[in-house]
This record gives sequence, C-alpha cells and structure tokens, in this order.
Amino acid sequence: MQRIAIIGLGLIGSSIGLALKARAKDVEVVGYDIETKVQNQAKKDGAIDRAEWRLPDAVKGADIVVFAVPVPTMKELFTDVAPHLKPEAVITDTATTKREVMQWAAESFPDTVGFVGGNPLAGGGKNGAANARADLFVDAAYAVMPSTRAPERSVKSVVAMVEAIGAKPYFVDPHEHDTAMAAVGHLPILLSSALMMATAASPSWREISKFAADDFKGMTALAGTDPQVSAGIASSNADMLVYWLEEIIRELTDLQKMMAHESRSEKDGPLMQTFVNSWEARKRYEAGVTMLDFTRPALPSAGDGMVQMFLGERLGRIFTDAGKRANDPTQYRR
Amino acid sequence: MQRIAIIGLGLIGSSIGLALKARAKDVEVVGYDIETKVQNQAKKDGAIDRAEWRLPDAVKGADIVVFAVPVPTMKELFTDVAPHLKPEAVITDTATTKREVMQWAAESFPDTVGFVGGNPLAGGGKNGAANARADLFVDAAYAVMPSTRAPERSVKSVVAMVEAIGAKPYFVDPHEHDTAMAAVGHLPILLSSALMMATAASPSWREISKFAADDFKGMTALAGTDPQVSAGIASSNADMLVYWLEEIIRELTDLQKMMAHESRSEKDGPLMQTFVNSWEARKRYEAGVTMLDFTRPALPSAGDGMVQMFLGERLGRIFTDAGKRANDPTQYRR
Repeated sequence: MQRIAIIGLGLIGSSIGLALKARAKDVEVVGYDIETKVQNQAKKDGAIDRAEWRLPDAVKGADIVVFAVPVPTMKELFTDVAPHLKPEAVITDTATTKREVMQWAAESFPDTVGFVGGNPLAGGGKNGAANARADLFVDAAYAVMPSTRAPERSVKSVVAMVEAIGAKPYFVDPHEHDTAMAAVGHLPILLSSALMMATAASPSWREISKFAADDFKGMTALAGTDPQVSAGIASSNADMLVYWLEEIIRELTDLQKMMAHESRSEKDGPLMQTFVNSWEARKRYEAGVTMLDFTRPALPSAGDGMVQMFLGERLGRIFTDAGKRANDPTQYRR
Repeated sequence: MQRIAIIGLGLIGSSIGLALKARAKDVEVVGYDIETKVQNQAKKDGAIDRAEWRLPDAVKGADIVVFAVPVPTMKELFTDVAPHLKPEAVITDTATTKREVMQWAAESFPDTVGFVGGNPLAGGGKNGAANARADLFVDAAYAVMPSTRAPERSVKSVVAMVEAIGAKPYFVDPHEHDTAMAAVGHLPILLSSALMMATAASPSWREISKFAADDFKGMTALAGTDPQVSAGIASSNADMLVYWLEEIIRELTDLQKMMAHESRSEKDGPLMQTFVNSWEARKRYEAGVTMLDFTRPALPSAGDGMVQMFLGERLGRIFTDAGKRANDPTQYRR
C-alpha cells in the first residue's frame, strides 16, 4: 500500500486524486486544502480517501507528496512540511513554472528527499474542484523535471504515478519548460486578461457586451484563471513573459500600421498576407505540422500540394491569386 | 410560396438554408456558391432546394436575397446582381461589419429594393459548410440594420426570416454595431492571429509547440478564420480596430512594466490587482453583470456581497487580504 498526499484540491489536485482512485491499485490518497468546503467535497467525491486538518498530518508517512497549489504559496508550504516528511519521501508539484520551484525545493528539503517537478498539460481554461475528472490526464503530455539531486527511485515513483493517471511523461529541462510555457501557456493568459480589461473598462461596455458572443467568450476564458495562479505565473516567469509580450506588441503594432495605411481596395496587400500566414500557421499547428519556415516566400506557388490539402478549392484560389498578385475583377464570378 | 436566395454557402449561408428548410413553411431556398463542390454539397445536405450555376439566375424571382459572403467580395456582387433583381426584392447580408456594406447597398440598388443589413451573433470560431447546423441560430442575437430607404415591408420580411431560423432580432445603428463588433468580435481575431504569428515564427517553435495544450488551441482558434473574412474585417473596420489595438497594446505594456519592476515577494502588488480585476470582469460578464465601474477602488471591501458570491471562501479571502494590503505570512496556513 502506497500513500500519496495531495496538497491543494483544486482542478488538478482533485483530478489526480480521482484518477488515482479510479485507475491505480493499492494507493491510499490523503488530501489537504486550505478551504474546508473543498476538502470535504473532495472526500465526498471520492478524490481522496481521507482529509487531514493540519498540513503536517497530511504529509506524515506519505510516500509521495503532490503540491497542486498556486506558485506564490509553494515556497512557504515546502518550508512548513519539510520537518514532517518521511526520510525517503518523494515530492512533486504541478505548477506551470518550474525554475523558482526547483530552487525552493533545493533550499527546503534534505538530500534524502527526492524532488521531481511536474506539469500536466491538461485542464486548460478551467478552475476548481467542480470541474475535476478522473480522465483529465488521459493521453495528455506530462512534463517531468527531476532535480539534480533526485535519486533514481524518486524519478521512477513520479513516472509511475504519471502513467497511473493515464498521462504520458515527457522529460524536459526546467529552463526549456519555462520558456515554452511562457509562449504557449502563460502569454495566452495575459492576452485573455488584457482583452477582458480593455473592453470591460470602456464606458460603452454595457452596450458593447450585448454583441459579445462565443468568440469573445472563448478568447476571455483564460481571464477567468484563479488570479493567484495568474499572478504567480507572471511573477515567477516574468523575464520570459517580458520577452514574449514584446513579440506580441510588435505583431499588434504591425497590424495597426497596416490598417492605418492600407488602401481598402488592396485585395492582396500586406494585411491579407498576414492573415493568410497566421491562418496557415494555425492549420499546420492543428495538423501537427510544426516548424513553419517563415524564410520562404510568404505565399507559396499554386503547385504547393500542402496548400490544396489544407485550403480546398476556393481558399486555394485566393492563396494562389494573392501569390500571383492577380487582381482580376472577374475572380469572384464563375 | 416565398423564394429565398442564399449567395455564399459557407457556415452561415448553409446554416440559414438548413434552418429555413427545417423550421419555415412554404419557402423555396435557391443557393449559389463560387465553389462547385460547396454548392453540390449544400444541395445534398438539404440546405438548399436547388443550386444555380449563374449568379443572375440565382437571384431571379427571389423575394429575399441573403448575401453570406466575405466583405471584400460584397460590393462587386451587389453590382452584379442589381439588374437581375425582382423590383420589390428584399436584400440582406450577414457580414460582421456594416458601414461600408450599407453604403455599397445604397449605391448599387434601386429605391424599390429594400436593403436591411444583418449580423447573426453565432458560429464563432468555426468556418465552412461542414460545420453548418439547422440550430446554429437558435436563441442567438441577430443584429438588424435597416437602410434609411428600406420600406417597412422589407424590414418585416427580414425580421420574419430571422425569427424563422430561431434567432432574436436586435435593432441597432450600423455605426454602433461596428464599434461593438470591433471590440468583442474583431479584436479577438487580431489577438488570436498575433499570438499564432508570434509563437510560430520563433526558431524554437518545434520544441515550444509540444507544450501547446488546450489553452493555446483555444486562444489561436480564431486565427483559423477564413483569411478573406479577417482581411475584410480589418480593412472595413480599420478605424475602430486601430483604436482598440491601441487600448490592448496599452494593457500589455502596463503588464510588461509591472513584470519588469515588481518584486517577487509582493503578494498583493499591482500585478495581483490587475489579475483580480480582469478575473472579476470575466466573472461579471459570464454572470451577465455588465458595466463594471472601474472608478471605484480596485479592490472592494470584505463586505461586498458580490465578491463572496463570485469567489467562494479562499478567493474571497485573497481578495479581502489584498484589499487590506495584508501581508500576513500565516495566511496560507489553517
């Protein structure tokens, strides 16, 4: 019988509990959350076998301790639990930034304790135990980042847990992890929040919001991320995010300039090219074709098989027409 | 028997056809699309009763003509069909920008023809006839913008059609419509495209994209909008979008500055306040509470019933703590 303690019973913590109880054998799950209601609900939902009211009691005797809490609370919790851990306990976490967490772990835990950072790439755009599911991690990638001092057995324990909940472990360097997460995990939260702020702050928001349909709802979903999580990400991955914000601001400024200067009759001008490029990038990403080569001409020739495959007849024609800089007024007639 | 001609059989055009055939009585739907395959498929799917190979034949004898095509093609199509319309035909469209379209209609159609602009607030983030559904418009708002010269009967015809497909007509001024759509309909497309461009252009994109999960997929979905539609929006609503891009760039620049300067130990600093504000705006929007009053203090007092209602216990506490500028190191302990 292995004992796993889960600290923090939000979406990720509760889902790990549910997945372990549904899929793993001989596992006792002990849970702790700062919110009593959440703790009781997790017990009721079967995400944990038992709840503990004091943090030290929750980690006592645990073989694996999983920290599924916002980054800003992590350091303090590490310090708090350290004296109460089993000598050979394995510690892991689920935060989406890892450089700071790895450093705090190195400072907080004795050498016998193995720290193996983790980040399940699942649960996007949702918060809270109410959305927890036993199959949340099925076939999801799960980044695994062993600390330099982590004994092999602790790495094996975490990998076994990751596989037990249905996820696919993926080993990565914490620095590389934080760079990638900044671009595709954290920057989207900042953009979503900025969109929500900019529109809701408008004096016309009451009127404007009547037109806010699915597109807007989707694009602002990440603004609904737990603010403590967002703030933790923003401060713990600040350097990377400052870089990515620069890139985004450049793209937006370019769009702004094109709109201010482009003639409305320009059917295949820079604006059209930009949207064709971003649209193509999205299609390739969706199809799993990564590594766009933006050094080639922005618009491929008519013979590009890729284009036909993605675009179908009409868009293929637009693409080709734009490439040829054709401006035939009959192009929209049969 | 009323004859309705649908020009352009993408997601919106085909869905209108499907909805009319499923929900309206005594309606004959004639369809036209520049793409032969799309036209045949619409016939096969039952979105139209018959297809016409020549645009003039499609509108001949039609009581209502619905233009469901990208804005850049609209002007030319108006000119093309004008001589072939029934004298008292009613014309409508489904574009998400309206000022230009209204002007083109005034220039193209004789006074007997009534033009009533339309915009169904449905179908967000999806393209193409393959996603068409008879119930796409059920309970969706549908903006209706009669031209100044439109006879009352033409307004009634369009409202009847809107109601027949299950949508709720909402009368609005074209200028007001374009302002609101810029903020909540078009700006999201620009942000989504900019995010896709900025990340996919990175030399590390192949590695980075491995970490792109649901959040990223959701935030870049609108980059998959038909580029002709995006470019049409960007050029026909350029003035409004230049303004909104300015607002967004300011929000992002503010975030960037906070991240560059904020101390990581500042648990309730400006970053946290920003995320609490945007998170609250999103919750209020979701709950249908619009008109945020950003002139009140950024963080309400503990007694604010709204806060408790939205936040639950833990977040309510963070909110309150931040408001009090509390920095009690025991706040994450029970």
